[in-house]
Amino acid sequence: MSANQLDKKSEAWSALFSEPMSDLVKRYTASVFFDKRLWKADIQGSLAHAEMLAAQGVISQDDWAAIQRGMAQIREEIESGRFDWKLDLEDVHLNIEARLTQLVGDAGKRLHTGRSRNDQVATDVRLWLREEIDLIDGLLGDLQKALLDLAERHAEVILPGFTHLQVAQPVSFGHHMLAYVEMFARDAERMRDVRKRVNRLPLGAAALAGTSYPLDRERVARTLGMEGICQNSLDAVSDRDFAIEFTAAASLAMVHVSRLSEELILWMSQSFGFIDIADRFCTGSSIMPQKKNPDVPELARGKTGRVVGHLMGLITLMKGQPLAYNKDNQEDKEPLFDTVDTLKDTLRIFAEMVGGITVKPEAMERAALKGYATATDLADYLVKKGLPFRDAHEVVAHAVKDAIARGVDLAELPLATLQGYSAAIEDDVYQVLSLRGSLQARDILGGTAPAQVRAQIARHRARLAG
Amino acid sequence: MSANQLDKKSEAWSALFSEPMSDLVKRYTASVFFDKRLWKADIQGSLAHAEMLAAQGVISQDDWAAIQRGMAQIREEIESGRFDWKLDLEDVHLNIEARLTQLVGDAGKRLHTGRSRNDQVATDVRLWLREEIDLIDGLLGDLQKALLDLAERHAEVILPGFTHLQVAQPVSFGHHMLAYVEMFARDAERMRDVRKRVNRLPLGAAALAGTSYPLDRERVARTLGMEGICQNSLDAVSDRDFAIEFTAAASLAMVHVSRLSEELILWMSQSFGFIDIADRFCTGSSIMPQKKNPDVPELARGKTGRVVGHLMGLITLMKGQPLAYNKDNQEDKEPLFDTVDTLKDTLRIFAEMVGGITVKPEAMERAALKGYATATDLADYLVKKGLPFRDAHEVVAHAVKDAIARGVDLAELPLATLQGYSAAIEDDVYQVLSLRGSLQARDILGGTAPAQVRAQIARHRARLAG
Amino acid sequence: MSANQLDKKSEAWSALFSEPMSDLVKRYTASVFFDKRLWKADIQGSLAHAEMLAAQGVISQDDWAAIQRGMAQIREEIESGRFDWKLDLEDVHLNIEARLTQLVGDAGKRLHTGRSRNDQVATDVRLWLREEIDLIDGLLGDLQKALLDLAERHAEVILPGFTHLQVAQPVSFGHHMLAYVEMFARDAERMRDVRKRVNRLPLGAAALAGTSYPLDRERVARTLGMEGICQNSLDAVSDRDFAIEFTAAASLAMVHVSRLSEELILWMSQSFGFIDIADRFCTGSSIMPQKKNPDVPELARGKTGRVVGHLMGLITLMKGQPLAYNKDNQEDKEPLFDTVDTLKDTLRIFAEMVGGITVKPEAMERAALKGYATATDLADYLVKKGLPFRDAHEVVAHAVKDAIARGVDLAELPLATLQGYSAAIEDDVYQVLSLRGSLQARDILGGTAPAQVRAQIARHRARLAG
Amino acid sequence: MSANQLDKKSEAWSALFSEPMSDLVKRYTASVFFDKRLWKADIQGSLAHAEMLAAQGVISQDDWAAIQRGMAQIREEIESGRFDWKLDLEDVHLNIEARLTQLVGDAGKRLHTGRSRNDQVATDVRLWLREEIDLIDGLLGDLQKALLDLAERHAEVILPGFTHLQVAQPVSFGHHMLAYVEMFARDAERMRDVRKRVNRLPLGAAALAGTSYPLDRERVARTLGMEGICQNSLDAVSDRDFAIEFTAAASLAMVHVSRLSEELILWMSQSFGFIDIADRFCTGSSIMPQKKNPDVPELARGKTGRVVGHLMGLITLMKGQPLAYNKDNQEDKEPLFDTVDTLKDTLRIFAEMVGGITVKPEAMERAALKGYATATDLADYLVKKGLPFRDAHEVVAHAVKDAIARGVDLAELPLATLQGYSAAIEDDVYQVLSLRGSLQARDILGGTAPAQVRAQIARHRARLAG
Repeated sequence: MSANQLDKKSEAWSALFSEPMSDLVKRYTASVFFDKRLWKADIQGSLAHAEMLAAQGVISQDDWAAIQRGMAQIREEIESGRFDWKLDLEDVHLNIEARLTQLVGDAGKRLHTGRSRNDQVATDVRLWLREEIDLIDGLLGDLQKALLDLAERHAEVILPGFTHLQVAQPVSFGHHMLAYVEMFARDAERMRDVRKRVNRLPLGAAALAGTSYPLDRERVARTLGMEGICQNSLDAVSDRDFAIEFTAAASLAMVHVSRLSEELILWMSQSFGFIDIADRFCTGSSIMPQKKNPDVPELARGKTGRVVGHLMGLITLMKGQPLAYNKDNQEDKEPLFDTVDTLKDTLRIFAEMVGGITVKPEAMERAALKGYATATDLADYLVKKGLPFRDAHEVVAHAVKDAIARGVDLAELPLATLQGYSAAIEDDVYQVLSLRGSLQARDILGGTAPAQVRAQIARHRARLAG
Repeated sequence: MSANQLDKKSEAWSALFSEPMSDLVKRYTASVFFDKRLWKADIQGSLAHAEMLAAQGVISQDDWAAIQRGMAQIREEIESGRFDWKLDLEDVHLNIEARLTQLVGDAGKRLHTGRSRNDQVATDVRLWLREEIDLIDGLLGDLQKALLDLAERHAEVILPGFTHLQVAQPVSFGHHMLAYVEMFARDAERMRDVRKRVNRLPLGAAALAGTSYPLDRERVARTLGMEGICQNSLDAVSDRDFAIEFTAAASLAMVHVSRLSEELILWMSQSFGFIDIADRFCTGSSIMPQKKNPDVPELARGKTGRVVGHLMGLITLMKGQPLAYNKDNQEDKEPLFDTVDTLKDTLRIFAEMVGGITVKPEAMERAALKGYATATDLADYLVKKGLPFRDAHEVVAHAVKDAIARGVDLAELPLATLQGYSAAIEDDVYQVLSLRGSLQARDILGGTAPAQVRAQIARHRARLAG
Repeated sequence: MSANQLDKKSEAWSALFSEPMSDLVKRYTASVFFDKRLWKADIQGSLAHAEMLAAQGVISQDDWAAIQRGMAQIREEIESGRFDWKLDLEDVHLNIEARLTQLVGDAGKRLHTGRSRNDQVATDVRLWLREEIDLIDGLLGDLQKALLDLAERHAEVILPGFTHLQVAQPVSFGHHMLAYVEMFARDAERMRDVRKRVNRLPLGAAALAGTSYPLDRERVARTLGMEGICQNSLDAVSDRDFAIEFTAAASLAMVHVSRLSEELILWMSQSFGFIDIADRFCTGSSIMPQKKNPDVPELARGKTGRVVGHLMGLITLMKGQPLAYNKDNQEDKEPLFDTVDTLKDTLRIFAEMVGGITVKPEAMERAALKGYATATDLADYLVKKGLPFRDAHEVVAHAVKDAIARGVDLAELPLATLQGYSAAIEDDVYQVLSLRGSLQARDILGGTAPAQVRAQIARHRARLAG
Repeated sequence: MSANQLDKKSEAWSALFSEPMSDLVKRYTASVFFDKRLWKADIQGSLAHAEMLAAQGVISQDDWAAIQRGMAQIREEIESGRFDWKLDLEDVHLNIEARLTQLVGDAGKRLHTGRSRNDQVATDVRLWLREEIDLIDGLLGDLQKALLDLAERHAEVILPGFTHLQVAQPVSFGHHMLAYVEMFARDAERMRDVRKRVNRLPLGAAALAGTSYPLDRERVARTLGMEGICQNSLDAVSDRDFAIEFTAAASLAMVHVSRLSEELILWMSQSFGFIDIADRFCTGSSIMPQKKNPDVPELARGKTGRVVGHLMGLITLMKGQPLAYNKDNQEDKEPLFDTVDTLKDTLRIFAEMVGGITVKPEAMERAALKGYATATDLADYLVKKGLPFRDAHEVVAHAVKDAIARGVDLAELPLATLQGYSAAIEDDVYQVLSLRGSLQARDILGGTAPAQVRAQIARHRARLAG
């Protein structure tokens, strides 16, 4: 009986090689220390492959039974931490296959029939990522729900809406939170689009050209719950679009997190003083005893760079690669894994932290009073009295200039003074100049009026329940 | 009658400002020299807005008629190159609005009712990008068709398939081309996913909070052919996800172009000599008279960096921005415009160039004979004779080692020698060891057998015709 | 007399080519529309090359005189805008050379002896960039001087120093400005390091291998004021490190600009209200008449993304390129040009804008009083009374907790209360608890005490004058 | 005795906090699992700080002795793997400090006097990075030496020099290797420039403002071998330029590695067949028994993306951060650590692998004969006979066209035929048309003539020995 190629891997790669890999090279090229996290997907994929091989008569029913038995034991060994991962066996695939052969003999050696590590790893990563996307989808939902709860509790709270970080117009705090619900909803939408392209089966492409065994790829796809099949074998083993696409979607989600973080940090600074974040999400200083720092949003803002870096790394990786599989592609895993971990941790902690935000309505309202936030309302008032908008804009600019000089708000100018700017102004102007009046007035689809905010909350809840 | 705010823009921004913008600042902050390309979308958006204002009774039917008349003239002025773009008026929006007011008076001043440049520019960019995506979709289709034609003509041509740029297994040249069809098909799929999120209406968000005018946003969306409405005003004016998402999709498309380019460059090098590219796509050297260089694929490979750079720039731009609109966002345009231009030019030129590729089948076949490309076929042969795959792999490794030492191909080893490796080998082995036999054997869905290649071509043609 | 290769460029690249370049390809591959800005460097380099050719006897003194005469005229034509740039002639080099040959005949055709466009363009870009680096160095100096002036005027102004955007300890506003002087000083230092590697001569490398003409490369380097010679011809034509290195240094400078911008935007928001920026650096809103927005810092913050994007683009461009010159490299120019333009414009406008900042000391001091900014001083006070620092930290944390509960500052707690936390506290504690006392106490090299600030200002002024 | 703040860290951050950190937050914000690799630098920095505190009389000589004793034990515990790293203590700093206090009591609590974790961590990272830069400098030297050895052995070997991957001119294989020596020499130069800016002392900046203790920062700098002092406390704690600058330099080094890798992969492909890489640096295929793949250069090419990604991540991290320290900055460590590890591993393995390259001179020379590599020599020959270069170029283009049509090399054209192109051609032309003649002719500084190659090798050896 001939020797199995995996038996002597520490001596030479195969009979073709005249010397063993140097230890430095083994460590440099091995992936088992990070790709072992794919073990579940690897076993899942192998079982689907073996089941099909047996159904097609490529291996016997006895082999199939032996493979199932061996895999069950391997699964148990890995879960209990007793599996002995070996650097010599390079990666998760050869480690599991070699152990299978130890356990069940020739049946194990037959498992790799019609398969290559090139299509095997692509299948594993897709199976694994599909599950992670589903978890992320759930976490995005949790975060949206936490934001909706916060929005609902504070639908009537008046926040100064900013553009250019200058006070612009009063908005409902709930309305502001809903902006983030929109963003995370889009992220979930994108994740689902990505999932379609992740959930396709490379297995059957073998090394690069397909195989001469009568594989039934559609059967394997059905077994694995995949929606499609990679229709070109060269593309199947060399495609990493799905990893880049996922990381781009994750980068956008982190950009949204970074924007929310920036605002939470601003709002918690003493100069704004709009919110407080519960102590359990903060840390102190080793030197300044009075400090309570919003570490979580700061760190999350920082972690945006990490995920964006992974996106850049993955694109650089793939740029200019000739077909089909190249070893470069092994470098897809660590950035992908870290992106998934970072995104999941961040979403989970944000969903919790949002519930630990205390809103300070008085501080928000006080700030809204500082920046002539109802100037646009005065202009709109004049338009309704017949002035063209551009002329009204200019009239109000004059009024604001005078009010600044006097150190008062527009609402504090006497009627006579206001009428000096435009004879069209009447006593009802003061209603328009109040924050609450301004808020209520924006009662248009997508606007900040509390009624609109409540309608949006209801719509989002229905969507998330669906 | 009061003074219009735009009349004296060169003197001061509005009555509120005590000094004019410095010339340096004007040049630094103005966008008119690049955003004027949005003029068509700007007029289209303004007309939809005005039509709705009139329908809702916010402006009169006379105003609506005047605005239509003015816009028709402006369109004509711009198309004929007679429009006088002014730096003082900052951007495309104020330039068009100021001219409209010159032409039709107060009706022009009323156009901006219930609207801000914040929601206006977001609408313009989305309208413009939607059209460009449709053009890109078409160009991706053209490129796929050109590749299909090339694949069909060479479905039977044998190319050495590489992994690690080492000869791996023979593949059909047509099959290889189909790998790129898959990639560009995925790009088109992604573009359509992006389009859904581009094609939503921000207008009606006004500056950030909605407006107190009774706008009918759904009417405007219908007029503009948009599929949805941005449901939160703060998000509507600050969202640039669509630009990032588009640029990420464009980056992937360029990565695919870079991979194809890398291969074309390799194949056209004298050492490969697999193809020739028509002279009209090449340039020479100013010093070396014999040179004919594949400039187009090289430059396209280089332009990948450009688009990837824009993606990174856009993400950096948005990271950590508080809501709602900030001036940073003006920087979204140039990278987006250049991404669109680069991608369109590249796809167009590639669709043409693919038709100018001459395939050299002999050189390809000769190269396929160099690397023991049918070794896997021998292993598979042994498996079919009963050996477990891992043992067969080791047997063949020995055979290859000997063949290398003798300087011959596997097919050149005498039967007796082959039988020395395994008694299971019989005379029929030589059929398996031929390139063409190997190719035909991979007759599985997605495999390289010419029959599969033809089936895929038919499937793609049907898809593209649909 | 034989035909010159450039005469019929619109018909075919050279006699070797059987068809002209397609118009699409011409536009795609031509660089003249952006690289013509290198014209001065191109002429400068050509003259140094020709002078040496004449000195070495490769061309005659008559040729050298003719080339000088021709170049003088070309320079005049370009400066006056009368030069006719032709797309057919691809780039700045062929345009100038073809015109030279028109003007002076065979002498012009002899200029390219021993030279290729590969070493020519590398020389041009280096000459151009060297000059731009010197301009940037000057602009970085101007910005530092403007910051020093501002720092000097406000060395005694108390600003709340933040960590985590939470009030940490009082700092001098001047001290804060000096942090940016350090950053921009490092940027200048880096630019000078880059300059050393820019200022080396590729000319003489010819296409890739050197040349058989007896060129005197050291003479050309001396003529052009270069500090060194690229010592390997393959590296000389393929190296773009200098462009990447410059863009990395520019990215860091823009990151510093983005940090200063972020602070200016925060400080100008009504919630902080620490500064005002002169009207000439601000813009208003098309809808909100009260708005004055800090457009310049916002846009500069946004432009950081642009430069970072160029850096990423350039790295992507060079990754994995085989030697020697490839057409990809043509894509180095636009990002490099735009990086230079963006950085110069931004530095220039910031140097001006810093002079237009109005500081509001009362608002800063009021904010510093909000966050228990002298808590560390109390801990240090206790340490000086004998407590280990970690115990003192805990004592003060208790005191701050109580003060928060009472809604007072530490300095407002009665002595008896303070003594309840530690018996070591005496009447002199109140001096320590004052903002000004805290500031003065940090009288250590690099610390915020006004005396230190003034010493640093003097040191920087001496450095910049040197 | 009062309670130490670190005693109850698992219950609350300090007395100010009303609840402990959530476990999720602990894991999210803790850095001890990656920053513990800074332990040596942390102890080194602490000892220098304590020594100075004692010299300045801030702590007693007994305290100083106790701290030394405690640190010696901690060092021993860490080295032997017995140190108990605690998540509750967040980071390497608090872990070591808390253990020190356990071991030596109040002296340990006094160590943090006049210091904050903000300046402590900046000091630790700089000390650590300085040592790594020195190691990298050494590894860059080793790689250069390995390349020089290879270059020297093959200074006379003729390689087809490529531009646009088309055969351009013959070059010495040694000359080609020297191009990489230039690149890695520049990398070392850059690393030394970065080192200057790394090797500056932040300690003494305390949290952000300096400290009221009479620290002698210059003494600490001397003790730690630092060349300078961070002269502004705010900048000292918030500056991460050095990390970005280092990662940019590392990215360039990896770009060079990627270029060399690309060439090694090309050259080892069967179509080129220029080199072989020793088996110990290669791996096989799980399915194709004949494969020997150049895994190391492929993986190194892929790892370029990883390092570039870290650069992008770090820049994104710092963009737009207000002063002074923010928690975002904690995210600087993992990318920096991984960049150092990746670069060191890659340089080490390349220095080894270069020694395992077998050069195949016949294959190289055969390839050089395929592409009319001496066409430029013919043009130069004509110039020396009096033709202007541009005319000579055109003459040779005609000759090459005819030679292609006849399927022969220029050197195979009969003299009469050559004279048909130009009457100036004489019998001595054939010497010019030989590969070796072409090589020898380029005997100019930086050119490819073997004499020049040997001179460069000698220069490099002297430089590296110096």
